[in-house]
Amino acid sequence: MKTRDRILRTALTLFNEEGEPDQTAVDLANVLEISPGNLYYHFKGKDAIINVLFENFETEMRMILGGSDGAISTLEDQWVFIYILLEEIYDFRFFYRDLGVLLARYPDIAGRFRGLLKEKRRAIEALLTHLSGRELIHIDPVLSGLLVDQILGTLTFWLSLDQIEDTDLPPAHLIHRTVFQAMATIIPYMGADGPEMLDRMLDHYERAVSD
Amino acid sequence: MKTRDRILRTALTLFNEEGEPDQTAVDLANVLEISPGNLYYHFKGKDAIINVLFENFETEMRMILGGSDGAISTLEDQWVFIYILLEEIYDFRFFYRDLGVLLARYPDIAGRFRGLLKEKRRAIEALLTHLSGRELIHIDPVLSGLLVDQILGTLTFWLSLDQIEDTDLPPAHLIHRTVFQAMATIIPYMGADGPEMLDRMLDHYERAVSD
Repeated sequence: MKTRDRILRTALTLFNEEGEPDQTAVDLANVLEISPGNLYYHFKGKDAIINVLFENFETEMRMILGGSDGAISTLEDQWVFIYILLEEIYDFRFFYRDLGVLLARYPDIAGRFRGLLKEKRRAIEALLTHLSGRELIHIDPVLSGLLVDQILGTLTFWLSLDQIEDTDLPPAHLIHRTVFQAMATIIPYMGADGPEMLDRMLDHYERAVSD
Repeated sequence: MKTRDRILRTALTLFNEEGEPDQTAVDLANVLEISPGNLYYHFKGKDAIINVLFENFETEMRMILGGSDGAISTLEDQWVFIYILLEEIYDFRFFYRDLGVLLARYPDIAGRFRGLLKEKRRAIEALLTHLSGRELIHIDPVLSGLLVDQILGTLTFWLSLDQIEDTDLPPAHLIHRTVFQAMATIIPYMGADGPEMLDRMLDHYERAVSD
């Protein structure tokens, strides 16, 4: 592996495991067993590394969110789509866990994070419009706006909530639970089909976490 | 005001406005225009100040949460109850905004924050049980558990979401909007009374923010 790639990969692991705010470029050089000068040759400080990591995250999130246009119709498709989205967030979890500090320290990333949140919002809106269009859900426009906020909140703060509650769930289990939580929010708008859909989701969830 | 009280009040303002992670005890002494030695005479470092601030927050939250037992029945009562809870969180907002860093740095506070979250969860559960008992809502037990998670998430991460979205809403407006968001989650479980309750909530919200 090239040194540049090794730096990025190691920085991501270090920030995910130890948190970004307390780690310096010198700490990172020590973990990599290279000199601070060599690190500086590749990246002019921690900011530059954070920026490239965020660019990578952004590119991958855009690809996933773009892939939601069109043919997501079955419960299984939607489940997989949200699972992939959350897995991507998990891979770059320090951005979400240390969000307050990162937004304050890196104004450029704050703006781009905001842009990404808007795209997530649009993807959720598109999904609800699709479900309404097929008459699978019936929802008042005001409540639809609130439902988008709820789903967006779940998909953004699931890692923070897990950090507070300290559940020690394995990552795949935590992700499946969050997919279930996000998807189950539409059930009260499904009318008579709601109870059956809830049973299907519970069944899907139980099979997913017992694998 | 006694020096000790002045230190606590100034620390709270400083942490709320500038974030806790980047502020040192020396920064705080400078803002207070006292010597670091004088600060140290009252508090043995920043940790000791954070601990007392958290104790104050905890005591006030417990009082508010305890006050929810019993006679909260009308829409207006519930609105005021959640408003007071969120106003209290707003007064100590740095605990919520810098949560990831604080939980990692202060393990003792992490445990107590977790305890407080459990009490919030119990207060929400009691509210839903009360509404079910009076047959104002009809909800499956699995969905009831998820609804508690959603309301808890809204009441915990509203400040973080606002920080990302950078809405610039005045605090009272932001708090009323969050109360509306939290309360509106029960509407789909109100059956035929849902639409009228939504209208009443919207009306209440609009009057509250136009004051």
